[in-house]
Amino acid sequence: MSRSCLAVILAAGDSTRMKSSMSKVLHPVAGRPMIAHVMAAVASAGMTDAALVVGRDAEKVAKAGSLDGISVRSFLQTERLGTGHAVLAAREAIADGFDDVLVAYGDVPLITAAPFAAAREKLAEGADVVVIGFHTDKPFGYGRLLVESGELVAIREEKDATDEERKVTWCNSGLMAINGKKALSLLDKIGNSNAKGEYYLTDLVEIARAEGGKVVAVDAPETELTGCNNRAELAYIEKLWQERRRHELMVSGVSIIAPETVFLAFDTQIGQDALIEPNVVFGPGVTIDSGAVIHAFSHIEGAHVSAGATVGPFARLRPGADLAQGSKVGNFCEVKNGKVGEGAKVNHLTYIGDAVIGAHANIGAGTITCNYDGVNKFETRIGANSFVGSNSSLVAPVSIGDGAYIASGSVITENVPDDALAFGRAWQEIKPERAVAIRERALAIKAAKTAKK
Amino acid sequence: MSRSCLAVILAAGDSTRMKSSMSKVLHPVAGRPMIAHVMAAVASAGMTDAALVVGRDAEKVAKAGSLDGISVRSFLQTERLGTGHAVLAAREAIADGFDDVLVAYGDVPLITAAPFAAAREKLAEGADVVVIGFHTDKPFGYGRLLVESGELVAIREEKDATDEERKVTWCNSGLMAINGKKALSLLDKIGNSNAKGEYYLTDLVEIARAEGGKVVAVDAPETELTGCNNRAELAYIEKLWQERRRHELMVSGVSIIAPETVFLAFDTQIGQDALIEPNVVFGPGVTIDSGAVIHAFSHIEGAHVSAGATVGPFARLRPGADLAQGSKVGNFCEVKNGKVGEGAKVNHLTYIGDAVIGAHANIGAGTITCNYDGVNKFETRIGANSFVGSNSSLVAPVSIGDGAYIASGSVITENVPDDALAFGRAWQEIKPERAVAIRERALAIKAAKTAKK
Amino acid sequence: MSRSCLAVILAAGDSTRMKSSMSKVLHPVAGRPMIAHVMAAVASAGMTDAALVVGRDAEKVAKAGSLDGISVRSFLQTERLGTGHAVLAAREAIADGFDDVLVAYGDVPLITAAPFAAAREKLAEGADVVVIGFHTDKPFGYGRLLVESGELVAIREEKDATDEERKVTWCNSGLMAINGKKALSLLDKIGNSNAKGEYYLTDLVEIARAEGGKVVAVDAPETELTGCNNRAELAYIEKLWQERRRHELMVSGVSIIAPETVFLAFDTQIGQDALIEPNVVFGPGVTIDSGAVIHAFSHIEGAHVSAGATVGPFARLRPGADLAQGSKVGNFCEVKNGKVGEGAKVNHLTYIGDAVIGAHANIGAGTITCNYDGVNKFETRIGANSFVGSNSSLVAPVSIGDGAYIASGSVITENVPDDALAFGRAWQEIKPERAVAIRERALAIKAAKTAKK
Repeated sequence: MSRSCLAVILAAGDSTRMKSSMSKVLHPVAGRPMIAHVMAAVASAGMTDAALVVGRDAEKVAKAGSLDGISVRSFLQTERLGTGHAVLAAREAIADGFDDVLVAYGDVPLITAAPFAAAREKLAEGADVVVIGFHTDKPFGYGRLLVESGELVAIREEKDATDEERKVTWCNSGLMAINGKKALSLLDKIGNSNAKGEYYLTDLVEIARAEGGKVVAVDAPETELTGCNNRAELAYIEKLWQERRRHELMVSGVSIIAPETVFLAFDTQIGQDALIEPNVVFGPGVTIDSGAVIHAFSHIEGAHVSAGATVGPFARLRPGADLAQGSKVGNFCEVKNGKVGEGAKVNHLTYIGDAVIGAHANIGAGTITCNYDGVNKFETRIGANSFVGSNSSLVAPVSIGDGAYIASGSVITENVPDDALAFGRAWQEIKPERAVAIRERALAIKAAKTAKK
Repeated sequence: MSRSCLAVILAAGDSTRMKSSMSKVLHPVAGRPMIAHVMAAVASAGMTDAALVVGRDAEKVAKAGSLDGISVRSFLQTERLGTGHAVLAAREAIADGFDDVLVAYGDVPLITAAPFAAAREKLAEGADVVVIGFHTDKPFGYGRLLVESGELVAIREEKDATDEERKVTWCNSGLMAINGKKALSLLDKIGNSNAKGEYYLTDLVEIARAEGGKVVAVDAPETELTGCNNRAELAYIEKLWQERRRHELMVSGVSIIAPETVFLAFDTQIGQDALIEPNVVFGPGVTIDSGAVIHAFSHIEGAHVSAGATVGPFARLRPGADLAQGSKVGNFCEVKNGKVGEGAKVNHLTYIGDAVIGAHANIGAGTITCNYDGVNKFETRIGANSFVGSNSSLVAPVSIGDGAYIASGSVITENVPDDALAFGRAWQEIKPERAVAIRERALAIKAAKTAKK
Repeated sequence: MSRSCLAVILAAGDSTRMKSSMSKVLHPVAGRPMIAHVMAAVASAGMTDAALVVGRDAEKVAKAGSLDGISVRSFLQTERLGTGHAVLAAREAIADGFDDVLVAYGDVPLITAAPFAAAREKLAEGADVVVIGFHTDKPFGYGRLLVESGELVAIREEKDATDEERKVTWCNSGLMAINGKKALSLLDKIGNSNAKGEYYLTDLVEIARAEGGKVVAVDAPETELTGCNNRAELAYIEKLWQERRRHELMVSGVSIIAPETVFLAFDTQIGQDALIEPNVVFGPGVTIDSGAVIHAFSHIEGAHVSAGATVGPFARLRPGADLAQGSKVGNFCEVKNGKVGEGAKVNHLTYIGDAVIGAHANIGAGTITCNYDGVNKFETRIGANSFVGSNSSLVAPVSIGDGAYIASGSVITENVPDDALAFGRAWQEIKPERAVAIRERALAIKAAKTAKK
């Protein structure tokens, strides 16, 4: 569609019921702010320009709503006089005369591109106003969409509806599309002669029809229109988002044993035949390739897991973790900014930070890459086919050669050549019978403590 | 309300369907026994004295039902002859002539103060018996509350009800309030001329009305009246409790991303703008201050987390853990009886037990406070701005000075002065090419093993 | 029942909607392939022989469907011409003339023995064909079971049904039992004169009745008949399975605080009065004895936990872990092929692999059994009442004597006698004021880095 398209996103709400120190639309769903979800939806529907109507936290909202390659202007809404008034805060943008104008809400983040795309198609076919409606089992309280001969003749509010009209289950979502060439003239005709003295966007239906314009309605699934007024509703929106995305992944060929326990981020990508066990949390920036296995209790963000690699249980991959084919990061292991080479194993109780591990290396239990001196971070290189003994400390910057062998319990501060053995530990000494004395001393301390009491 | 109030709590049930080695009312919901939940509810409704009617595990039940500042007497119920008979086990307490007598059940733990408070108000207004009822979609099997001119005229059992009466959806919960001055006389009139030969508390309705007394009903939400007969029902009660408390916290301004995966204890306190990620378990005694972040997979009990502090993922805080502002306890870390100073970091694979960590100290990965000698526990002090290198063992009692630096892999057994460097580790040695021999030996061992088979 | 019984299991489906690199029936539910669940059900119903009708992954399916003590033959289905045709792929087996022939489906894994047992009883009483039906609220699309005088007179497909017939809520599941002596002759009469040109097993109703045979229907719960066509349905089946088994365990006396977060394997056994906290994952081969406590965030497979033992939180038990009475494996601990003796404690950050720990031993935080040399695995023995200090590395093969004491941070490579003290660590040294120089150097490095930028 080559028609120009402005989306006006209302994001200035007070959010008092959120009881939050930040604007409602900044609260995240699936790891990104609600406003960014809405922006992504209108962008997918072909939006070419955006106008954010902002209030609280205006700068942060503008930043969260920014999109690469799209001009996004912010307009401060200083008064709360109804949706019609709010849209007109973006008067300057609307006046630019786009073909299509979309109206979306920053706190309705589950909306997808489809309803907007359908609405734009109606505009292209000559409609002046397109209302996005939804079908519901519980229409009580919503404005009903009254349709005659394919045209929307009115949005009837609950209090004004007849018994017959109350039975209508197609309702007004508040989302809308407007012929951009007529938008400003139509919006300027909205009055405030009503009980609350507010300017209602829904009046556009009547106004457009009075001018002989065509008004129609398109449909969106009810769940996409769920709004957010408090944090319980935020959690409900998160739940709906997660359910939708989990289902998409499963039908695309990802095995998720207990989907209700797997939490995805907005950009989580998982390949076919990957297996995700119960209780896995994905942060942003994760790609899991085909056939990888993510065991239970794994926490993964900013990481890449190659085909045939295995993660967890109880593993944490942090940003920059990159697991090559057939590698393994096991229980109570953390990898941050670390490459784990093909077939390499990091199996138990290990911290890998700022490190590169070669192919088929075996990192023993309890190994720590000491990457921090209190101020700076340094890198550790561990060669291919090397063996790092358990409980070793690798003090970066340091390099372990290919095929090298580090004895258990060593502190390694200097580079180890290929195929060398390195150790750094005291020889074992044995004091026969001495444990008896130690126990007696411990018991004596206890007795003394008890006596004091 | 200055009226004196006795609560009689029936807690002598057989609990055979629980298949348990302890009394049903001792089974916990949200980390405390069911009986304690009921006691808290009647206490909030203004109870001044309590009478526990106990059977199995009498002493433990009495202990679990004790409340600071309230006289709680226990009465052993030796026979099971119906609810009317059970209440009279507390005859001695009832005979004291309180203004109000409440009847509650030890296995109905979701009840709140509100229905009892409403019932007491009715008593104060002159009612003799107040039945607590509930509205339900599925009344089948329950006694229906038949109301005329605002008075409860009968509780009609399913089997005795007419078709019209069966349509009544207001039902008897079994909970009740009685005019305390008349209670004993009314209770003594309950007979057992019925099919089962039992004494039914519900007969009080008829008895009171026959004497010209006033009987009314008040309402409680159905969920608050959920009873517990087996462990599946116990789990269902836990679920309802959790849902109620999570919702309270969310609408008060706590962000809980996936509320169904967060488990709260009866006394968990969380401040506004705190963030709770998925899969967090709270034991008793936890306070989370405003703006703290609890990452996924955290397990917290008996701990305090200050504003701006961060916990997890995969962190465990045990009793006595106290995290100051801006401090951090990260993955695979355990803190028990330990203070973590302002801005201090305990980030990876660390055990902190019986320790005090100064402000802005950095505890390296794999650090262990060795607080136990097999008999006694000792304390470790770690100074402000100190740096403890990775894989260090701090053998308590020991003190690390402010600004001190512990080299990686050290075992520290003696106090370290302020700003000193301490180390305790062998120098690294390198044996060129030796790893080749080690590998050859390992392969030879394998070959030998294989040959044996 | 001494009647011989052949089960024909259809397991040749294309599974394209699974988007999987393996046959649908190999996908696991509760840790074993769907086909194995079906086999277990028919085996419990008294099956004496099985015929697997296989397609894709024929060998793997045959292996997954094998059962000790039962003859299982596989038959390759090369064409897809309907269920009647599919069953006849097992012609050779059916021709053997069993008393009863059962027809089951490899992708309907929740089926239990009961419906088949009921169907076999009907065969024993003289029925020729027994259809397994289910009652449903949503019969739309299913074939309705039309019964007259106790006999099934027809299975009416949706499209052929009258309005009255559409109201029937008893539907055809596709599962069936057939008089084995007549089975082949009946099956051979199924034709394909229908719109799709396929051979429908349901035609047996009409065919048998036309010959004067008796056809009846028995009932199965709707959930048991849930089929699997994509991975979202697979997850739903897993959920139903888990709910069923969790409920069984709870009513048998196991406390499961949050059942929806506990994942059981097909063979998980848990004794009465055991406590399972939230977020526990069981793999195959686990037995938990009475009164054991499994704390939150535990991952257990192939392990045995004795009465009074405690696991977790954040513990991982792998195959061969065996915890004796009153022992404890705590947070961030892994046990693989290891016996933990009576009352022994493995409390923090420890890896126990290929080890035997004596009674009442205390394993300090951060202990690692170094069981691997890069090629071979070796065993560690830790004596009763011994004390292993924190951060120790026990290099196997090695033996620690009874009552021995290992100092913190030691690397133990040689056997330690009973009651001996062993250590292997450097003496602590202190360099006064040196930490100041270290900090200055670190800051200088940072400054230099910054300057470069």
